[in-house]
Amino acid sequence: MAEELGEFALIERFFSALGARRSDVRVGVGDDGAVLTPPTGQELVAVTDTLVEGRHFPPGSPAASVGHRALAVNLSDIAAMGARPAWALLALTLPRANALWLREFARGFQLLAQDSGVALVGGDTTAGPLCITVSVLGFVAVGQALRRSGAQPGDILFVSGTLGDAARGLQHELAQGGIADGEALATDRSRAAALRQRCLYPSPRLSLGVALSDLASACIDISDGLAADAGKMAAASGCGALIDADSLPLSLALRADVGDQTAIELALTGGDDYELCFAVPPGRLDVLKRKLPMAQHGYQCIGELCAERGVRVRQAGQFIELNRAGFDHFR
Amino acid sequence: MAEELGEFALIERFFSALGARRSDVRVGVGDDGAVLTPPTGQELVAVTDTLVEGRHFPPGSPAASVGHRALAVNLSDIAAMGARPAWALLALTLPRANALWLREFARGFQLLAQDSGVALVGGDTTAGPLCITVSVLGFVAVGQALRRSGAQPGDILFVSGTLGDAARGLQHELAQGGIADGEALATDRSRAAALRQRCLYPSPRLSLGVALSDLASACIDISDGLAADAGKMAAASGCGALIDADSLPLSLALRADVGDQTAIELALTGGDDYELCFAVPPGRLDVLKRKLPMAQHGYQCIGELCAERGVRVRQAGQFIELNRAGFDHFR
Repeated sequence: MAEELGEFALIERFFSALGARRSDVRVGVGDDGAVLTPPTGQELVAVTDTLVEGRHFPPGSPAASVGHRALAVNLSDIAAMGARPAWALLALTLPRANALWLREFARGFQLLAQDSGVALVGGDTTAGPLCITVSVLGFVAVGQALRRSGAQPGDILFVSGTLGDAARGLQHELAQGGIADGEALATDRSRAAALRQRCLYPSPRLSLGVALSDLASACIDISDGLAADAGKMAAASGCGALIDADSLPLSLALRADVGDQTAIELALTGGDDYELCFAVPPGRLDVLKRKLPMAQHGYQCIGELCAERGVRVRQAGQFIELNRAGFDHFR
Repeated sequence: MAEELGEFALIERFFSALGARRSDVRVGVGDDGAVLTPPTGQELVAVTDTLVEGRHFPPGSPAASVGHRALAVNLSDIAAMGARPAWALLALTLPRANALWLREFARGFQLLAQDSGVALVGGDTTAGPLCITVSVLGFVAVGQALRRSGAQPGDILFVSGTLGDAARGLQHELAQGGIADGEALATDRSRAAALRQRCLYPSPRLSLGVALSDLASACIDISDGLAADAGKMAAASGCGALIDADSLPLSLALRADVGDQTAIELALTGGDDYELCFAVPPGRLDVLKRKLPMAQHGYQCIGELCAERGVRVRQAGQFIELNRAGFDHFR
């Protein structure tokens, strides 16, 4: 049964000690602000990201997934900067204080925070439409932060993990929840479960990001679809990107579920992958392969940066057209 | 006319260089994260606060006021910690990208940010119900952060500024906007304007907070009403508070507008004052008065901390009852 709690009891109960215990937290949740001790000789990296119900996750999504994703999307930005996360602030707006929902939300947040070494140090809880903003602070050695803007024509383009799974997982999630028209998509059930997992519980590539910080010339995390995000990285670097569709990392589950051609389209434009897209100068490829064996770290070469602006995708020797270059919230 | 913009054009146009220019910002808005250089030998103070339309400000509030307040409520928390603000992150969720509204919002944010020496270093813009989460990072000398929990029975209780104006200003604002039933409240127009100003454009007490950091035993900012917030500070300190209603700082505008008794009630329970409530041990009163002359710094003694838990209010020698102990979002 839904249980209604006062705001202060609620914060106390679910959010007073979430995440990792860190000795650099002098004052955590419960005062007007958190007091933290930054490590010396490092730069601070700060990111913030919002999830809105009905836009970033379907109404009725599992609360644990919402808690996980609210943190994960921020950790993915931290990873893309080559930084290590340390502290999080959680601003939670929700229609009412449902103890069951909050417990599950906190559990989802907690597991990922603990795994990532992140302490929840402050926040705000307000009543309103379900909407979660998390801010994460992390650290990187001085001058070592990865940028979107450092790539040059000729640099090799890589992505981590597999792409398109989350977008297909969302379709299954919508069908499963009876949100989409019709019935559950005709598919193998364990395959659908694997894809839904990628959508509900994305894995930020934190250790890869840190390892890349002295190797990659540019990096971005893929939240709006590979084509859109590779395009942003290329544009910030003053160049273009050439993507080889036949090299895109596709999971067996996705290929079996939708076929190769749709899998490629989802990989290019699907969004919500939270993988890293990064560029490495040709002169550093040997070091990259030695320090970060591809198979072990799960990344793949998918193309290169070029002088001609824009993103072009080549398949079987021909350029293909993109239907939709990622996701632009206000268009 | 409303003008619709794409998300990226919008961010670029309004939020790329808001606030103060600071040499400690290595990477600001526009990458996956901000890269910042914390000063050595200081602790970091981190706060976050959300404003939701219809809850924290009336629908149709001036966009400049919303931009100002979204930052001000956070700066007030920074002030209550005795810290100096440095950097802000802005997570803006809005139904659509209206250029006129955004320009005004950015202007309100900008003026306060510049005055406070705060640089906007990152953010996120998403579509959804109007809701703004700002996070602010600041600094304080090691071990000097003000807490809610340091007060002791016998410490003297002070507040800055005048109380209750914002609560009355909100009533005028609602009446003026045709939001409340009936017509504009019968009142002097310049008086109503002054009170509305206190509601729409609160002034965080940053320099007072910094000055108090080695004088006050405890501090909290007043957002939910003096009685509620003094109660939180006392509870965190393991004691109670005794407030002298006849000593409450009331503006001439408020007293003229609602009479003395209602003014006292609004001062105790109105909320949204964003003044500081702080405790000073008797042994430090001389230093306080010497370092921070009361008249110049605008604060006033309103009571004392006591051993008996809870908040009691005394008026003309008798204890009075509070109708409503501040504001609890989920009750």
